[in-house]
Amino acid sequence: MIPTNSTITALRREFETELFEHVIPFWEKHSWDRVNGGFWNCLDRSGNVFDNTKYGWLQGRETWLFSKLYRTVEQKPVWLEMARSGAEFLKNRALMSDDRLPFRMTSDGKPVYVQRKIFSECFYVMAMAEYARASGDESYAREAQRMFEKVWEWAFDWRKVGRPSFEGETSLQSLAVPMILMNLIEELTDGLGEPFGRELADCQKAFLKHVNVPEKRVYEFVRPDGSLCTDIPEGRQLNPGHAIEAGWFLQHWAQRQKNSDLSLLAQNVVRWSHAEGWDKEKGGLFYFLDAQGHSPVQLEWNMKLWWPHCEALYAHLLNYSLTRSAEDWDLFHTTKEYTFKHFPDRTYGEWYGYLDRDGRVSQTFKGGPYKCAFHVPRALLLCWNTLKKLESEK
Amino acid sequence: MIPTNSTITALRREFETELFEHVIPFWEKHSWDRVNGGFWNCLDRSGNVFDNTKYGWLQGRETWLFSKLYRTVEQKPVWLEMARSGAEFLKNRALMSDDRLPFRMTSDGKPVYVQRKIFSECFYVMAMAEYARASGDESYAREAQRMFEKVWEWAFDWRKVGRPSFEGETSLQSLAVPMILMNLIEELTDGLGEPFGRELADCQKAFLKHVNVPEKRVYEFVRPDGSLCTDIPEGRQLNPGHAIEAGWFLQHWAQRQKNSDLSLLAQNVVRWSHAEGWDKEKGGLFYFLDAQGHSPVQLEWNMKLWWPHCEALYAHLLNYSLTRSAEDWDLFHTTKEYTFKHFPDRTYGEWYGYLDRDGRVSQTFKGGPYKCAFHVPRALLLCWNTLKKLESEK
Repeated sequence: MIPTNSTITALRREFETELFEHVIPFWEKHSWDRVNGGFWNCLDRSGNVFDNTKYGWLQGRETWLFSKLYRTVEQKPVWLEMARSGAEFLKNRALMSDDRLPFRMTSDGKPVYVQRKIFSECFYVMAMAEYARASGDESYAREAQRMFEKVWEWAFDWRKVGRPSFEGETSLQSLAVPMILMNLIEELTDGLGEPFGRELADCQKAFLKHVNVPEKRVYEFVRPDGSLCTDIPEGRQLNPGHAIEAGWFLQHWAQRQKNSDLSLLAQNVVRWSHAEGWDKEKGGLFYFLDAQGHSPVQLEWNMKLWWPHCEALYAHLLNYSLTRSAEDWDLFHTTKEYTFKHFPDRTYGEWYGYLDRDGRVSQTFKGGPYKCAFHVPRALLLCWNTLKKLESEK
Repeated sequence: MIPTNSTITALRREFETELFEHVIPFWEKHSWDRVNGGFWNCLDRSGNVFDNTKYGWLQGRETWLFSKLYRTVEQKPVWLEMARSGAEFLKNRALMSDDRLPFRMTSDGKPVYVQRKIFSECFYVMAMAEYARASGDESYAREAQRMFEKVWEWAFDWRKVGRPSFEGETSLQSLAVPMILMNLIEELTDGLGEPFGRELADCQKAFLKHVNVPEKRVYEFVRPDGSLCTDIPEGRQLNPGHAIEAGWFLQHWAQRQKNSDLSLLAQNVVRWSHAEGWDKEKGGLFYFLDAQGHSPVQLEWNMKLWWPHCEALYAHLLNYSLTRSAEDWDLFHTTKEYTFKHFPDRTYGEWYGYLDRDGRVSQTFKGGPYKCAFHVPRALLLCWNTLKKLESEK
């Protein structure tokens, strides 16, 4: 069913209230570390710090968020102050002398653990780029550019930061790498893409190897030539929420490039992944599935996590804004009903992150090693902007 | 309630049937890789190989099991053949030139991934030692001894195999290390302990730092001086099944050393961990808990895994065999009722490994990256032997 004007307006208001009254205030109130700079990441249900460890991914993501809010929503001084605090903490305290950003660190930025992956540094680039625009401080734009070059080099010569390779290893390409780089170029260039046309084309090409059109599936890992490797669980691994997120990353580029074939593919990536990942019995998106129906080896495979639902909210709404089809609206509506019923905590604000298969809260914390002010507010912001656009176009 | 003679006999028969008719035949039939040697590890519900990757921990554990069965239960030729196949695969194909054993490897033993931990090599020592006794081939005893020396060196100079250390890291000691070494000395010396008196004393000393008597708790991680580090989740982490397993490892030494204080402590470690870890609402042992009641960060914290229940079965029965108390019998009985009701698969044999909090099967595979012919048959064998002893002593 296609929504009426008043449905769109009511939803726009609901997303606005959720974002600016229930979600952002939680992080403003509880996550800013005014002593060391940066953000407390491990916050319990009511916002108390249960662990003062900080996480590199999350410092970057929250810096990005408050920069983005300041620049694109409202010039609230506290948002710029929080963004500056995060950006300075990242650049001056957390970054190591070899340009690695720790995955875990102490509250004052001393490294605890460095991942053999590039994601901490990717979120560092996002933070630097958006903070540079928010603050007008060009030195952060240069820092974003400098680190992007490192990340690009590491992404294609994994030996410099990755695990050692062994003789028996199956060479597989991870969806996460081209996907994050595609989003990173969007963030670095504020959606323009220039001067990274070649890099973007490389990412899109690598990304498309994961999309199996005949099977209507996105595989998390494929061989470098794009062929399937279904004799090991990694090669059969499906992560519907991840594919849905990748779908809207791709759609943003398809729109800018006015590439209708790519746009249709990106739409389908979202629809197929939802169809495969939705739990028809209990509702919600599964976390992991096996393409051949084997019992997934991930213990948490059937849990319902906040972020796949956040990504699906925006991905379906974006599809609807392009197609105006009842099918896409129904997917958005189904996702929105499940998500708003199960995840928000109406007592203390923000959303729970982890539900069991039945939709019961499994962990009560609001911030943890992988959850901060990012997926919930980003999805709400993107949906709010899209709903405003739909409102104005009606 | 204290069991009657006929209860003990009925239980002895039940464990015997479970072990020799429902569990061992599954592994005999499905896990032996007659082409490459060693064992298939990833077996679905009915025993089909769903991934031909092999795991170092599991190759060692299954080699140990079939050696032990051959030497201590019955000289069935197939058990010795399977043990030999595992031992030769480990020693000749899987072991790397730097004496590391891969955590993951191809079916013919080529390394895929090497953990920055010592556990693969610990299970290698167990396998070599028990196979040497089963086969009478002294060269395997020498190999066990040689690798034990490496493991001992690595355990106390972690830099040689472990993760790099970083400035902000909190130095913590893991229960797993002294615990496995204590069991390894038992296996290496067939329970005698000689000539490793000093090493054993070191392990016991390190182990006892984790036991907090005033709180009646076993902490997974403590500072090297034994003090608690409750400001980070690792320092508050409880793993009741692990502590229960450690309890019976310690009890075996307390018995041999005729140390009644240590025996009482080992009994209490089991009882306290059960009291803390048992899910009073749904039954079964939780996987992880936080000592201060925070929401555990492990997504699988409330799942019911096969191995803690296996370890608890034997630990409580061992306690009962020492105390003959109704309290210990009741703990055994409660654990046995839950375990036998929820884990065994009466259609295809063996036990499921992973249940959700409510006790519903969450993954259907019988063998996977951490599950092989080990915890279930070891616990059944230990319980069967203990029940036979109780029967004969009545």
